[in-house]
Amino acid sequence: MSAFTAVDVIRAKRDGGVLSDAQIDWVVDAYTKGLVADEQMSALAMAILLRGMTGPEIARWTAAMIASGERLDLSPVARPTVDKHSTGGVGDKITLPLTPLVAACGAAVPQLSGRGLGHTGGTLDKLESIPGWRAALSNDEFIAQLRDVGAVICAAGEGLAPADRKLYALRDVTGTVEAIPLIASSIMSKKIAEGTGALVLDVKVGSGAFMKSVDDARELARTMVELGGAHGVKTVALLTDMSTPLGRAVGNAVEVTESVEVLAGGGPADVVELTLALAREMLDAAGLPDADPAAALRDGRAMDAWRRMIRAQGGDPDAPMATANEVEVVCAAEDGYVAGVDAYAIGVAAWRLGAGRARKEDPVSIPAGVLLHKRPGDRVRVGEPLYELRAEHAVRIPPALAEAERAVRIAPDEPAARPLVIERIG
Amino acid sequence: MSAFTAVDVIRAKRDGGVLSDAQIDWVVDAYTKGLVADEQMSALAMAILLRGMTGPEIARWTAAMIASGERLDLSPVARPTVDKHSTGGVGDKITLPLTPLVAACGAAVPQLSGRGLGHTGGTLDKLESIPGWRAALSNDEFIAQLRDVGAVICAAGEGLAPADRKLYALRDVTGTVEAIPLIASSIMSKKIAEGTGALVLDVKVGSGAFMKSVDDARELARTMVELGGAHGVKTVALLTDMSTPLGRAVGNAVEVTESVEVLAGGGPADVVELTLALAREMLDAAGLPDADPAAALRDGRAMDAWRRMIRAQGGDPDAPMATANEVEVVCAAEDGYVAGVDAYAIGVAAWRLGAGRARKEDPVSIPAGVLLHKRPGDRVRVGEPLYELRAEHAVRIPPALAEAERAVRIAPDEPAARPLVIERIG
Repeated sequence: MSAFTAVDVIRAKRDGGVLSDAQIDWVVDAYTKGLVADEQMSALAMAILLRGMTGPEIARWTAAMIASGERLDLSPVARPTVDKHSTGGVGDKITLPLTPLVAACGAAVPQLSGRGLGHTGGTLDKLESIPGWRAALSNDEFIAQLRDVGAVICAAGEGLAPADRKLYALRDVTGTVEAIPLIASSIMSKKIAEGTGALVLDVKVGSGAFMKSVDDARELARTMVELGGAHGVKTVALLTDMSTPLGRAVGNAVEVTESVEVLAGGGPADVVELTLALAREMLDAAGLPDADPAAALRDGRAMDAWRRMIRAQGGDPDAPMATANEVEVVCAAEDGYVAGVDAYAIGVAAWRLGAGRARKEDPVSIPAGVLLHKRPGDRVRVGEPLYELRAEHAVRIPPALAEAERAVRIAPDEPAARPLVIERIG
Repeated sequence: MSAFTAVDVIRAKRDGGVLSDAQIDWVVDAYTKGLVADEQMSALAMAILLRGMTGPEIARWTAAMIASGERLDLSPVARPTVDKHSTGGVGDKITLPLTPLVAACGAAVPQLSGRGLGHTGGTLDKLESIPGWRAALSNDEFIAQLRDVGAVICAAGEGLAPADRKLYALRDVTGTVEAIPLIASSIMSKKIAEGTGALVLDVKVGSGAFMKSVDDARELARTMVELGGAHGVKTVALLTDMSTPLGRAVGNAVEVTESVEVLAGGGPADVVELTLALAREMLDAAGLPDADPAAALRDGRAMDAWRRMIRAQGGDPDAPMATANEVEVVCAAEDGYVAGVDAYAIGVAAWRLGAGRARKEDPVSIPAGVLLHKRPGDRVRVGEPLYELRAEHAVRIPPALAEAERAVRIAPDEPAARPLVIERIG
């Protein structure tokens, strides 16, 4: 018989107390084993959301989630390892060009990624637009590819932080996603368990992000940077703007296409800027401060690494991608400047077009998505294309159109430029 | 497809919002039908506990719980109906003498009672000490006995407020019992659904009660009085002291025996005082202000009603009750006065002796319990019996003794008397 009961632990947090190390170890382990029921853990998660956790509580909770599974040893890779994690945004395809770019500069990037749910897309969903590409690798395949190619983007194995896997699914259906201690411990337990030596966090702020305010984003970033440090993973964070989508493409195939443009030395300025900013942070953290990622984009090394990475997972980097049957181009009804493109509304529009899923088991549409012909700050004249919506079925267009119309604002004056990178924490 | 999702309702309350009538109706109905999962309802219950509910929200929640089942029509009873509810205390056997007493004075008392869990005993558990007595009645049996005898104490039927039945079991295992909106709506939905015309609430305050402070007890009492009024049930509440056990007996058979002493015109002064105070409130609320319950105790009419009530449910009021194999009498180690007997610790002692249950499916011991030879304020000399512990098995004695020893305080001076009835709200 255990010294603890779930009700005692729940009550302690409910009443504003600090959980002991032993209580945290017990409740995370017992939940993973099914000895604490889902309805008990969801009540605890709500109490954590509303009462908060101290730094030491978050650190112990994270350690307990790591201890629920295996921790990979990446020493056979024989290169400095560095990973990146984004808290999720609209049009955030940065992982796609960034991973091969950093690998091309000499580090190894072990990117364990997820699928989209709600209005933000998932990196694995995007890459599955490429014919033949597979997301699932064994641990041995993962480490071998990391050693041989230096770049892997794949699904996290079942053995990494199983407590987090179970808790994340529960939080998703119980209104307990938005708890900074639980977000931080969820992200960091997986990253620490995967074995990376360093980590750069892209913490998104704005309408299209989980964190709507800079204060919340900063608290989350600081919490994660501390957690990384406590577990020997050199961690830095950039707070970046997510009030407007990243780049021009929001969807699956369209984001892969845009990523390849960046790897070819082109692509939208904001995507290039953020890719390079994160690449520099990653290379610094990996102990390679003299690497020149801008040169690796220009001279084709990053593109070569991309092609090797895609081929290593069965994908054909030269295969044409599925195209949409239905395309609706929306033109400007007035002259002026694009004053704003709301990230959340565009995310919802892409989701309604079929690019995202409502339930975990739903498939996503490969060609569905939104293409922005004009971005914030662009001059626009009556009749010029503003954006286009792509879908496999015509019935998807009208509800997405309603969202997109709300998203795009035209104004007579040129808007002030917003900085993309807001703050660095590390 | 519903207009609502569980996550939206949880988030609204989590973020401090007021739930709409439609949201409340939907979530209670969907939970009863299994469309909202236990883990979602427990997260919502925790959000309600920590964020609170407005008066109108509580009223609607209660109405939705009543609407989840049937509402009895007691008009065939042809007498004014009045019920009593206690929020639960240690040694609280008041329902046993009170129900036949009020019936003997001309009202009908439809007492739907529960079983004990944790340190407070259950009325049904106590009555099952009487050989032959059965707690389960059909609705027709319930109404017929109420008409013919005027007094019924039985288990609530499955058809009354099934949403509450399901939610109560969930709250019990998720640390969400202590939410005033949920306590109030749970109690009142069952009492309103049972069809009583009037209701007197005994809201306990002190170490042995759920409500430890007078402020919390007053808030709960006011909330319930308002809920009763809103549903046409005349409701008043007494706040009464539960810092010390009621009477001298805490257990099952021992509490029945003490109740019969009260019905015979004797019994501990505090039990008699509270029984008469509640009886007067009930008879007032039932429109019988001229009834004289003290006379009904003296002249045997209350005892007659008790015997009829027990017989109507198969019980033999003259049968001897089971006795304990193990009796441990604890004597005073010093001279002085009993300064205090902590209700909670005595409740836990009785529970450890076997009088209560740890899980719903556990049986309770009939003869187990605590008998207080001395009560607060009593003079005591070295070597005089202070209390005795009774159990079926010797192994139960030592852990109970540890609790009881903590409970009883001896001091050199006579303690100030505490009022039993603290406040009236109605």
